Amino acid sequence: MKKESIAIDMDGVMADVETHFLNWYNKEYQAALNHEDLKGKSESKAFPVKGIIRKYANTPGFFETVPVMEGAIEAVKKLQQQYDVYVVSAAMEFPSSLIEKRNWLQKYFPFIDWRNIILCGSKHIISTNYMIDDHPKNLDPFKGETLLFEAFHNIKVKNHSRAKNWKDVLHYFDIKLDDLD
Amino acid sequence: MKKESIAIDMDGVMADVETHFLNWYNKEYQAALNHEDLKGKSESKAFPVKGIIRKYANTPGFFETVPVMEGAIEAVKKLQQQYDVYVVSAAMEFPSSLIEKRNWLQKYFPFIDWRNIILCGSKHIISTNYMIDDHPKNLDPFKGETLLFEAFHNIKVKNHSRAKNWKDVLHYFDIKLDDLD
Repeated sequence: MKKESIAIDMDGVMADVETHFLNWYNKEYQAALNHEDLKGKSESKAFPVKGIIRKYANTPGFFETVPVMEGAIEAVKKLQQQYDVYVVSAAMEFPSSLIEKRNWLQKYFPFIDWRNIILCGSKHIISTNYMIDDHPKNLDPFKGETLLFEAFHNIKVKNHSRAKNWKDVLHYFDIKLDDLD
Repeated sequence: MKKESIAIDMDGVMADVETHFLNWYNKEYQAALNHEDLKGKSESKAFPVKGIIRKYANTPGFFETVPVMEGAIEAVKKLQQQYDVYVVSAAMEFPSSLIEKRNWLQKYFPFIDWRNIILCGSKHIISTNYMIDDHPKNLDPFKGETLLFEAFHNIKVKNHSRAKNWKDVLHYFDIKLDDLD
């Protein structure tokens, strides 16, 4: 029988860009912002310096050095046992991110075949059974089942199932958590 | 009303890789192979030197310097007037091609928005109304309408509508050819 398929977002889901933005910001501005400070804010208003997220996203090296989201590697491995897992990342807006994202996946998720990686602009023509993403703009038009991965900017979103972390994702797919503890 | 969507392949459809492979091969081996010599052969057996296509595809600069397929620019512009046009290219196998394909599109097809560009591995989870591609492996599993763009390696394929060139593509979509002559 053909496996069901899952499209998994990178930034904010597999890759902990929130921590990365905080680290870069705090270093550049000798600040001490933390995750609580961002909670509930939009991406454009999360940091006191306007445009800083776009600036960092356009800085060579940013995407290649993002830390892995806690629990992501083990969870994706577990999902792969039962599902066709595709990585679907919006990379096209930031051309330097293309090769960096490919390299990052090769480093941390070498068990994901290149055939299952998609770097795109919009995700409107992606058709899988499930999509895991932190942005409602990607989940809202999606025709399959949606799972919103929690991020500071989506706290108020109500119209999708929510996963606060990768344990929640596995719970959603009814997969045992043994190996994650 | 929402427009219907078309996924268009790059290599062998928008980009004339056949001519590019011939040019590179003839230069390196001081040969005089032409399009007729390749006709009906598989990609792996088209050239007398084994693995030469993969070698060139892995050579930095190859994809950025491919000539545009005759008539492609004008035809894609015309399709855009009536359809949501997406570029869907299998680039993930050759990492250096990622940024080169992005740059190539920016150079020759700047009127295609970055949101409509998808660089992928397999095309199995792409869902549009139409797909134009030179490889049956991409068209066979596709659920929408398929149009096979003619290439030396697909001459014998019978199970898809066929376009010999971009004029045929516009004819298939019932679009006038005036501007192409």
